[in-house]
Amino acid sequence: MGLLEQISGPRDLRDLDDEQLDALASEIRDFLVAKVSRTGGHLGPNLGVVELTMAIHRVFDSPTDRVVFDTGHQAYVHKVLTGRSAGFDGLRQEGGLSGYPSQAESDHDIVENSHASTALSYADGLAKAYAIRGEDRYVVAVIGDGALTGGMAWEALNNIAADEDRKLVMVVNDNGRSYTPTVGGLANHLTTLRTNPRYEQVLDLVKRRLNGVRGVGPAVYDTLHAVKKGMKDALAPQGLFEDLGLKYVGPVDGHDRGAVEHALAQAKRFGGPVIVHVMTHKGFGYDAAERHEADQFHSPGPFNVETGEENPKGRTWTDVFAEEMVTLGEERQDLVAITAAMLHPVGLHLFAAKHPERTFDVGIAEQHAATSAAGLAMGGLHPVVAVYATFLNRAFDQVLMDVALHRCGVTFVLDRAGVTGDDGASHNGMWDMSVLQVVPGLRLAAPRDGARLRELLREAVQVSDAPTVVRFPKGPPIADLEAVDRAGGCDVLVRAGAKDVLLVGIGSMASVCVEVAERLGAQGIGVTVVDPRWVKPVDPALVGLARDHRLVVSVEDNGIVGGCGSVLLQTLNEARVETPVRLRGVPQEFLRHAKRARILEEIGLTAQALARSIVEDVTALDRGDAFVDVE
Amino acid sequence: MGLLEQISGPRDLRDLDDEQLDALASEIRDFLVAKVSRTGGHLGPNLGVVELTMAIHRVFDSPTDRVVFDTGHQAYVHKVLTGRSAGFDGLRQEGGLSGYPSQAESDHDIVENSHASTALSYADGLAKAYAIRGEDRYVVAVIGDGALTGGMAWEALNNIAADEDRKLVMVVNDNGRSYTPTVGGLANHLTTLRTNPRYEQVLDLVKRRLNGVRGVGPAVYDTLHAVKKGMKDALAPQGLFEDLGLKYVGPVDGHDRGAVEHALAQAKRFGGPVIVHVMTHKGFGYDAAERHEADQFHSPGPFNVETGEENPKGRTWTDVFAEEMVTLGEERQDLVAITAAMLHPVGLHLFAAKHPERTFDVGIAEQHAATSAAGLAMGGLHPVVAVYATFLNRAFDQVLMDVALHRCGVTFVLDRAGVTGDDGASHNGMWDMSVLQVVPGLRLAAPRDGARLRELLREAVQVSDAPTVVRFPKGPPIADLEAVDRAGGCDVLVRAGAKDVLLVGIGSMASVCVEVAERLGAQGIGVTVVDPRWVKPVDPALVGLARDHRLVVSVEDNGIVGGCGSVLLQTLNEARVETPVRLRGVPQEFLRHAKRARILEEIGLTAQALARSIVEDVTALDRGDAFVDVE
Repeated sequence: MGLLEQISGPRDLRDLDDEQLDALASEIRDFLVAKVSRTGGHLGPNLGVVELTMAIHRVFDSPTDRVVFDTGHQAYVHKVLTGRSAGFDGLRQEGGLSGYPSQAESDHDIVENSHASTALSYADGLAKAYAIRGEDRYVVAVIGDGALTGGMAWEALNNIAADEDRKLVMVVNDNGRSYTPTVGGLANHLTTLRTNPRYEQVLDLVKRRLNGVRGVGPAVYDTLHAVKKGMKDALAPQGLFEDLGLKYVGPVDGHDRGAVEHALAQAKRFGGPVIVHVMTHKGFGYDAAERHEADQFHSPGPFNVETGEENPKGRTWTDVFAEEMVTLGEERQDLVAITAAMLHPVGLHLFAAKHPERTFDVGIAEQHAATSAAGLAMGGLHPVVAVYATFLNRAFDQVLMDVALHRCGVTFVLDRAGVTGDDGASHNGMWDMSVLQVVPGLRLAAPRDGARLRELLREAVQVSDAPTVVRFPKGPPIADLEAVDRAGGCDVLVRAGAKDVLLVGIGSMASVCVEVAERLGAQGIGVTVVDPRWVKPVDPALVGLARDHRLVVSVEDNGIVGGCGSVLLQTLNEARVETPVRLRGVPQEFLRHAKRARILEEIGLTAQALARSIVEDVTALDRGDAFVDVE
Repeated sequence: MGLLEQISGPRDLRDLDDEQLDALASEIRDFLVAKVSRTGGHLGPNLGVVELTMAIHRVFDSPTDRVVFDTGHQAYVHKVLTGRSAGFDGLRQEGGLSGYPSQAESDHDIVENSHASTALSYADGLAKAYAIRGEDRYVVAVIGDGALTGGMAWEALNNIAADEDRKLVMVVNDNGRSYTPTVGGLANHLTTLRTNPRYEQVLDLVKRRLNGVRGVGPAVYDTLHAVKKGMKDALAPQGLFEDLGLKYVGPVDGHDRGAVEHALAQAKRFGGPVIVHVMTHKGFGYDAAERHEADQFHSPGPFNVETGEENPKGRTWTDVFAEEMVTLGEERQDLVAITAAMLHPVGLHLFAAKHPERTFDVGIAEQHAATSAAGLAMGGLHPVVAVYATFLNRAFDQVLMDVALHRCGVTFVLDRAGVTGDDGASHNGMWDMSVLQVVPGLRLAAPRDGARLRELLREAVQVSDAPTVVRFPKGPPIADLEAVDRAGGCDVLVRAGAKDVLLVGIGSMASVCVEVAERLGAQGIGVTVVDPRWVKPVDPALVGLARDHRLVVSVEDNGIVGGCGSVLLQTLNEARVETPVRLRGVPQEFLRHAKRARILEEIGLTAQALARSIVEDVTALDRGDAFVDVE
């Protein structure tokens, strides 16, 4: 029976003595490694904040005081300490614990969004509200050094600095990394802070610990316990933050729980906005994670605890993109690549290895990624900006005004488009094919398989006077699916039987449509399946095809409102095509987390469900009541 | 015959001696005041950058070297110096000079976007491109201190600072104001820089000049000429910028052309990224502008040069909003207001005067405006965020993820929605009713007149579990137009004759639809005109109404793709309503600048054009060929 089972809420931490607290920290690490090894999840970031999170919950009184985690994937320890350890077997599983804070799970959770750099703005708003309402509550924001490279964080700091009366503690969790090492002037500034003697001392302590730790469990505890406390009283208002007028405490050793508590208590006593600069080590205390050079086990799938080896992952869409970028990079000396702190996750690492001088990691800064790409294009190069689909929303205005208005040849590659599943509402890339429809001149491609990804990427980078977008989902690419014919720019994948149903399969849904066609064929319904390849602008060939069929069904892995189907409907309406049109896509709501396949099933984007609804439609058409009102 | 007529390009500046240059500066001011007094335009910002722009064009060699103006409205002097003075009679008029840089006008122009804080990102991209291509060209970005409060600028600085080899000069045009005085920690930091002795000296010089200037013309020239040059050699790497690793020159007196030239020349010689901090005075040299306390004649309409009095402006939509906010503020102690550096332009100044403690100017920082509003809502208040419609795109991700996902009761008020006209492509607010359609839970209202603005704003702030949006256009509000009936939540404005045509008039287009009804009525066509009031979600009553008519026509002052009409079409299609639907709105392209009325005429959003097209449709229906294919 460990200490962990005794923790039903943060107040239980107060009754523990130092020895017990250290033991608990060790237990939590063992627990996280064991659980995440089975479910997959964000391990490295959470191993890095065990002591920090414990300290926060001992110094502050959640949920009266509010703890806002930026990006949210480092809230596992917080979940453990707020009575949710029993739920970790179901982490990120359907019906189980979310991988992010969740208001539905706990009163201790407040911000669910996984997009970076928001915490300080939320905290600013909360602190203002409590001040206006006369409520005596602290707001604690925990933000990584990487997230400080995002412009929003600067906007917030600029506002917070102007306001001295808020009870607002900003913990900068400085592990020198966003996903990969943090870049830019800010990173250099934080490095400078580290060169002060106090910081050197802390670093030594941390290094000694790391050297002493070669496994999880008692060894970690003993090592931690044996090390002397360092620099509890480090109070050094410093540089950049001070210039903005912000009080500053630190840097402090984030794995010295006592030191962190001390710093937080001092920050609390200040009464105004304070930065607490805490130095942590991603993956701390789990040897395999610390050794993992690329990202310290940022977010592994299931893995072997002893060896740290992840279960084998198959080839992904990202791999196909990564390889094609290398090929294109050899052919085109004007091709440059931009990532927003996610070189490996978006697959630009291979290109970067070959062409470091043509690769730019701009930090977690999608706005700058887009607009500096416009500048690069104006300067005669062709930038490829690779981001997760959900994060492009951060740069919508820049895509519209800075790239499209200026007719710049910039290619945006959207990975993890459509339903991603496990990571919940804010990770699903279900918005891009709707919001990008409004951007004049922009061309949008949704490849159906790996071969088409290579082909469409190649076509995209040839467009020099408008933005292009290539979007594809998470996971393994679909087996190459060759066209049987071409219609305009569209690939015809199936042409079977009478011209009953025209299935327009967008991107990864094209292969699902081929399956649907088989099912319908078995029932004697004739089907044509087309993949438009370029979904914006709408291919004029689709108008003629629609006219020739009795029913048009579009299927997309994107929000149903304003998506590809919607624009197709609008185009057909404008062209006075009278064939009935049915739109299938993701319902326009925030989806709960579950496996992608499970969600697609739930929202009816499977071959079976699609075929069933189409049979009903065709039957109705045969009865001649296609237009019977549905009340 | 003045010097100004002799300037056909920047190189002509090189042949002038100091006396001639000072005379030219004076001529340019006279010229700008005279021209803008007739056309209206951005006066104050341009009077502030006369010497600065001349110095840039003497030190650098445009268009080989590139000059990027942030926000762009301060490029009038640049236009004069690049051979476009003859065009100023047509400034912001149809077919005339744009009020912003324009690639179509001149090779010296590059960035046309009027959205703030982008220049450093463009410049970073351009400088990288030139470095990669081995081209020896400088990039000069001119950015205001206000625009530095935008997060994008921080993202750019963070990237630029990490890269020492770029030929990149960043001129911070510090007039202490964005539209109104710049806020936040950055502003305080710049103020601190000003307290160094050198800066005090500069300030004194500037003040003496201002005291000596009481008119435009020879007096200005004499005064400028008589004043001794100050602090040409101010070279003081300072604080915040230095912490980021950026070289820094300044502060320098921006009205001392020689001093600015000297500073720019030094910056040029550095060879790497340098900040040049130039202190200017908005409205400098024109007494009436300097005295204009609110905004130094930021962007007046036509005015009297002698008195500085603007031609009388009528009551605007903004005024209606401003007054209703005061009323609501009295009733609701939990109401708070947020502006992004535009307190007066968006009409929050009346509320702010009554409730300063409940008003927050966050700087040019729409992202922070939205997310701090989410925080305020979580803290128990109801924030009203008032921005220009086009600028909300900057916070799209925040509206979606931070406000809507978290079910926060935040009201966004979008001024200048729809076609604004004069300020060109990047000011038109024609995107909001499309992109916001995808946001789950969000409710969107488009009031048709002043009474409805008051009414819908009142309804909006009562929603506590979802974002609400109220959008209205520029200019005078439409005379109140009372409903003759109600259908669901929709107002029925006209019910005349047979149920031939259902006109769905969105926002300001409702009154146009009433005119259309009169024209159609005269031709014996029966018309029902409805104003949905809340356009998102689609009112179910519209489905029944659509079914009961022979033709549905939606009219909106918004991009046609994915707009209100498009979602109505999608809804009717889903409900299997077979009534033909016609969508009228703004074509999905970047519009050139011209008067709003002229553009509406051009794009067919007038009663006459709409009536004509509807008569054609009805005639076709009468012939029974509504569905005849249009090839």
